[in-house]
Amino acid sequence: MPTYRAPIKDMNFILHDVLNIQQYNTLPGYNEASPDIVAAILEEAGKFVENELQPLNHSGDQEGCTRHEDGSVTTPKGFKEAYAKFIEGGWTGLSSPVEYGGQGMPHVLGMCLEELLLGANHAFAMYPGLSMGAMSAIRLEGTDTQKDKYLPPMIEGRWTGTMNLTEAHCGTDLGLMKTKATPQADGSYSVKGQKIFISAGEHDLTENIVHLVLAKTPDGPDNIKGVSLFIVPKFNVNEDGSLGKRNGVTCGSIEEKMGIHGNSTCVLNYDGAQGYLLGEINKGMRAMFIMMNAARIGVGIQGLAHSEVSYQNAVDYAKDRLQMRSLTGPKNPDGPADPIIVHPDVRRMLLNSRSFNEAARTLMLECALDVDMLHIAETLEERQAADDRVSLLTPVLKGVFTDRGYENATNAQQVYGGHGYIQEWGMDQFVRDVRIAQIYEGTNGVQALDLVGRKLGANGGRAMQAYMTEIATYLKANADNDVLADYLPALNTGFKDLQAATMWLMQNGLNNPDNAGAGSVAYMHLLGHVALGYTWCKIALAAQEKLDAGDSDIDYLQNKITIGRYYMRRRMIETAALRAEVEAGAEDVMALDAAGF
Amino acid sequence: MPTYRAPIKDMNFILHDVLNIQQYNTLPGYNEASPDIVAAILEEAGKFVENELQPLNHSGDQEGCTRHEDGSVTTPKGFKEAYAKFIEGGWTGLSSPVEYGGQGMPHVLGMCLEELLLGANHAFAMYPGLSMGAMSAIRLEGTDTQKDKYLPPMIEGRWTGTMNLTEAHCGTDLGLMKTKATPQADGSYSVKGQKIFISAGEHDLTENIVHLVLAKTPDGPDNIKGVSLFIVPKFNVNEDGSLGKRNGVTCGSIEEKMGIHGNSTCVLNYDGAQGYLLGEINKGMRAMFIMMNAARIGVGIQGLAHSEVSYQNAVDYAKDRLQMRSLTGPKNPDGPADPIIVHPDVRRMLLNSRSFNEAARTLMLECALDVDMLHIAETLEERQAADDRVSLLTPVLKGVFTDRGYENATNAQQVYGGHGYIQEWGMDQFVRDVRIAQIYEGTNGVQALDLVGRKLGANGGRAMQAYMTEIATYLKANADNDVLADYLPALNTGFKDLQAATMWLMQNGLNNPDNAGAGSVAYMHLLGHVALGYTWCKIALAAQEKLDAGDSDIDYLQNKITIGRYYMRRRMIETAALRAEVEAGAEDVMALDAAGF
Repeated sequence: MPTYRAPIKDMNFILHDVLNIQQYNTLPGYNEASPDIVAAILEEAGKFVENELQPLNHSGDQEGCTRHEDGSVTTPKGFKEAYAKFIEGGWTGLSSPVEYGGQGMPHVLGMCLEELLLGANHAFAMYPGLSMGAMSAIRLEGTDTQKDKYLPPMIEGRWTGTMNLTEAHCGTDLGLMKTKATPQADGSYSVKGQKIFISAGEHDLTENIVHLVLAKTPDGPDNIKGVSLFIVPKFNVNEDGSLGKRNGVTCGSIEEKMGIHGNSTCVLNYDGAQGYLLGEINKGMRAMFIMMNAARIGVGIQGLAHSEVSYQNAVDYAKDRLQMRSLTGPKNPDGPADPIIVHPDVRRMLLNSRSFNEAARTLMLECALDVDMLHIAETLEERQAADDRVSLLTPVLKGVFTDRGYENATNAQQVYGGHGYIQEWGMDQFVRDVRIAQIYEGTNGVQALDLVGRKLGANGGRAMQAYMTEIATYLKANADNDVLADYLPALNTGFKDLQAATMWLMQNGLNNPDNAGAGSVAYMHLLGHVALGYTWCKIALAAQEKLDAGDSDIDYLQNKITIGRYYMRRRMIETAALRAEVEAGAEDVMALDAAGF
Repeated sequence: MPTYRAPIKDMNFILHDVLNIQQYNTLPGYNEASPDIVAAILEEAGKFVENELQPLNHSGDQEGCTRHEDGSVTTPKGFKEAYAKFIEGGWTGLSSPVEYGGQGMPHVLGMCLEELLLGANHAFAMYPGLSMGAMSAIRLEGTDTQKDKYLPPMIEGRWTGTMNLTEAHCGTDLGLMKTKATPQADGSYSVKGQKIFISAGEHDLTENIVHLVLAKTPDGPDNIKGVSLFIVPKFNVNEDGSLGKRNGVTCGSIEEKMGIHGNSTCVLNYDGAQGYLLGEINKGMRAMFIMMNAARIGVGIQGLAHSEVSYQNAVDYAKDRLQMRSLTGPKNPDGPADPIIVHPDVRRMLLNSRSFNEAARTLMLECALDVDMLHIAETLEERQAADDRVSLLTPVLKGVFTDRGYENATNAQQVYGGHGYIQEWGMDQFVRDVRIAQIYEGTNGVQALDLVGRKLGANGGRAMQAYMTEIATYLKANADNDVLADYLPALNTGFKDLQAATMWLMQNGLNNPDNAGAGSVAYMHLLGHVALGYTWCKIALAAQEKLDAGDSDIDYLQNKITIGRYYMRRRMIETAALRAEVEAGAEDVMALDAAGF
């Protein structure tokens, strides 16, 4: 059965040594986040997920959720008790605002917690995870009354939240939705329609669920511009915050999925449920995008988390499993065979994962820092720069991290040979669970289109221009840095490929948008490689700096440099092919008539 | 629910127009395989798999196999009846020798049937599929008495066969096995031990099962050189061919797997079962390799079959699902949105699959032709050439076809968006089922090692030398061929990358075998690209030749050329990166101590 070791040490190293978050210690939240406090919080979080959540991961997968005849849903055995401990520990409010009962810690810490939850138990983590997006939308779009009513119990974890977008005939194209919200005399709306794929849509963990539902009003246009967002609580909430009448929203069925069986993915039927407009009428997509951007980074972390946990287990297996001799002679001469970690191809699979995990975690936390900074940085310029960068990199976090997460989980399963295919060993669950991350919150193809069609060109290309300038400046400043001698050739090449591909898209994507569409996924992965390679350079310098300062954790720090070298010299090789795929354009992609497929 | 359309038209085109099998019509088997006969057989096979097997695919996955307390196993509902029709149709003996009751048709036809069975129902296809390997071993290693006793009922399909290699602590490294076979006074052996992962190890489809079991004899060396092969029938067989006493082999449990639930993967316990030596003592691996080579090509076909069926369903969905507008303006202006097949990235995923499927099917059938020719070609030279080529390409068929099959099935699932994750739609089953093909019969990493460590160097590199000469000759001969103007640049580049990578391995793999190991998988995929690109050239020329001859099926033939162009110009881009990965060598792969992982 798989295990999970919370990667706390790595998180502390990244937060303090690579990102040096102490430099922000005059800013709100960061003033509380001293190294000691951060270490203590992560330590506790690590214990919690290892002891309470990870042991429920496999059993939750096997048992799944159960819908009863009255539409109620029971989560797998142990989830309810674990959730009670989770809110008892105050984890739901870690990075939520103090004024509504949260602890006000920075987002970077919240993201660390998110990875730990997901690494231990993806299906469980989604119950509080969905709440985070719903809370963001209420915080930013809600009236004071709405905020006072919904935020405190959600931050406390007594209630969870959901996002209701998809209908059977529309996911990406929400303008086609049929759910209707009709205004009532009392100012509320009567919501009618059916939503599908609603994660955590019904469960027994909390006394109430706050559904955020997209619907069209009768007078608005029948397209995406006529979509508004509504709060539809499972139980209506009285003035004093106590629960009132059961609302007209019920779980019609639970989907039988490939994975994340421990999370209830519901068909929700709205039969004239009472709903309350959140934000402006017909501006539902704006509010929904607030939730989606946060959610997309969260989904990216799912890719990382599965890559990490599947890697850890594959390493344990590779050190333990004796099979064949090393190609260069016995390494375990007294045993019947060598551990399979001696074999280059096993190492290749493991290192592909490891060299991704550590850079991805750093990049994810750098983006989390940007999410904080876009709110709290001192100057408007800094806020805008942070906003630009996280907007640009969100498709990479979502699209690239989950594609790699799937690939790495598959390789980790491969290390187990035949045992990897047997459910008892648990490796297939990582593959099945992480698979959804490539699909939901906008498929990875949609992420890539968001990148090339929206993010690249936004504000005259300001975000991409700034990011390229940042890397160019870095390359120039470090050109003679010996520590990076093995790193910079790959970053230089990758960066040139990225520049060329970007230029090609600018020149050829406008006159024929299919040129942008055909190369969009390749471009996203190209940007991902460069972003991760650039991140490895920063990690290596930070590690070397500690070594130079006489830090005693020599193996850990030197291994960082070794693993980064692997990424630069063996993984970034792919940038040329990705650039060539972008530059191949749309011709051969569009050549075949639909009938010819 | 998914559907399956047997790709009969494509098979006829490949057999007759690309491979021109009529040129062999003086050879045994081929003299029976006129275009009319072949077409009629494929037509019947297609109907059978579409009507009888495909409808049981999803239900078989959902139900799985059931082991009862007495160790007996029930296959999913409908399998038994379908199997009865299968043997009634004579399909089990299609390409088996006439002298034992088979129909003696060429291997190329048998391989077509194999793809059809697997495309319709992988789990079902494995029951007769495993028999094929067992029959080969008995044919080549058995005494006349053994052949007379076992082959006719196996060819008839009344009995099936199995391969028993793996034990809990050894899969790749069979020298570690513990199963013992002790000689008895009557010349038989008493077999004791436990085998795991035995596909079709116990079931209710046939009255008997012929297990081929690897075991060590008491006097042999305790390593791979002390392994012998034994026939252990589930029921002993009397002189007259009737069934005798139940033998001491029982199913201890069925594995709960990620996929292929309709096939019973058994733990088999041998408690002093009566076994009969097959072939020479201590030469069990030789016989086992006969089975494995056939089985590896069969597993490669699994990759192709899943790629094909998942592609077909994804195309249907992409034509049907309306979502968003084309980037270049509405293509379905009267509908609420355009079918998603207008989107370049959806087409990219579909074309990656389609452009693989048709070349892979051709390459597979070309190898099947080699399997025939290595037995029946007129000259020794031709036989050796055929043997060399199929040996060289077997790792590609197994390793590359299944890696691509998994990737393509994953992309086909992706085309469905959220629906792809829901079991009801059936796309996740293709991903789960094809996953095993990367693992069993030697993981794809083991295939790659077989290629670089054994096949490349065998007989002084004769096979690879011949294959490279073949391609070089082809490139030269067709250099001015206008039909291939868009094709040859990629084949030229890919071929140069392959030559360079091969040279690098020769120069650096001997002094440090880890250099060969570290690049082995990349090298296998590089060879795969070149082999498939070369195959596309042959397909395009065949299509153009028919067009020039005035064939009326213009769209079909022109589409072939269009799809091939896609492969050459968008997929073969990867060869440079694969070569670079080979040439990166072992240094960064081996740098980290095991403790550092």
